[in-house]
Amino acid sequence: MNTSTSSLKTVGALLFPNFELLDVAGPLEMLGNLPDKLKIVTVAEKSGLVCSSQGISILADFDIKNVPHIDYLFIPGGMGTRQEIYNQALINWIKDCSQHADFTLTVCTGAALLAKTGLLDGRSATTNKLAFNWVVEQHPAVHWVVKARWVTDGNIISSSGVAAGIDMSLYFIECLYGFETSQSLAKKTEYRWSHDAQDDPFAPS
Amino acid sequence: MNTSTSSLKTVGALLFPNFELLDVAGPLEMLGNLPDKLKIVTVAEKSGLVCSSQGISILADFDIKNVPHIDYLFIPGGMGTRQEIYNQALINWIKDCSQHADFTLTVCTGAALLAKTGLLDGRSATTNKLAFNWVVEQHPAVHWVVKARWVTDGNIISSSGVAAGIDMSLYFIECLYGFETSQSLAKKTEYRWSHDAQDDPFAPS
Repeated sequence: MNTSTSSLKTVGALLFPNFELLDVAGPLEMLGNLPDKLKIVTVAEKSGLVCSSQGISILADFDIKNVPHIDYLFIPGGMGTRQEIYNQALINWIKDCSQHADFTLTVCTGAALLAKTGLLDGRSATTNKLAFNWVVEQHPAVHWVVKARWVTDGNIISSSGVAAGIDMSLYFIECLYGFETSQSLAKKTEYRWSHDAQDDPFAPS
Repeated sequence: MNTSTSSLKTVGALLFPNFELLDVAGPLEMLGNLPDKLKIVTVAEKSGLVCSSQGISILADFDIKNVPHIDYLFIPGGMGTRQEIYNQALINWIKDCSQHADFTLTVCTGAALLAKTGLLDGRSATTNKLAFNWVVEQHPAVHWVVKARWVTDGNIISSSGVAAGIDMSLYFIECLYGFETSQSLAKKTEYRWSHDAQDDPFAPS
């Protein structure tokens, strides 16, 4: 066995019909640019092509029944979450996977899927601004934070809408590998990283 | 025929092996959120799955021989451009497609592919900072602009690296449909849009 390969951590990115394209691709751009550290796998209820709300289809490498162990579970949001919160097989898988993962990350209304498992009860999290009321009403036992680009509570990190997931992923990479690694990725991708989780210009004033 | 459908403009997004994920997904997030105005199609030398440098595969709906008319040609960058500049069949298609399109947009080293057609000769463009010298050496007849998030020259708009493509796509949407449409998209996606093309913190000082 190759030693360097065996030390790779696996990021498992969940896909479902009508996911939001940038929710997925923003963080995976950053996480996917560390191939010596992280292996990215995509997973859906059924493997194969999964179409985003923007009409772009991404391949899910695995279905939820045969996916390898996931160290870092990544859950995007999008309009599809409105259906998937009623998909008990998927919610059960998310719960099991999250309980065995080192970290779980959500973007946008991906937090609604995680909340549905009950794992966010009594914990702090954030979500998309435009869907905030819908998410809060569904899951009142969660301490929802209105003003935050992202919220960390133990091993669960949730970001607000879409592009905030990019900031969160760079923060997560900073936690794992240090600030310089994240800064280098932001420079490489010419991305204006806002690394203050409280600096949220989209929150209501 | 549905009247609203017939007035849709078609965005044709080129894919090739080892494209940069966010080069594609950032702009298509914005363009793909205007389904009443824009239809997105993906195209590659061969239709089917095309894998990004980040390990995520996107479906190319069409191959270059059977793609429908493209109004707005979109060319991403990425490490794959180092090979594709020698792919004469692809370069010929880009040239023909760009000459018949209303606008051509490039992100990152996508500009190198467009430059290879000769269509940028004597025109202004920009590209990725980290690959700048490689692009300039290959195409000295282009007026390459070092400090710019994006450059507009007639119906060709080129952006610098990766995330700059998101700013450019919002600018392009502003040109087509007005500032409020772009501002609304930036708010919806919680993206900090920098709408000053000269405000480029990644340019050497």
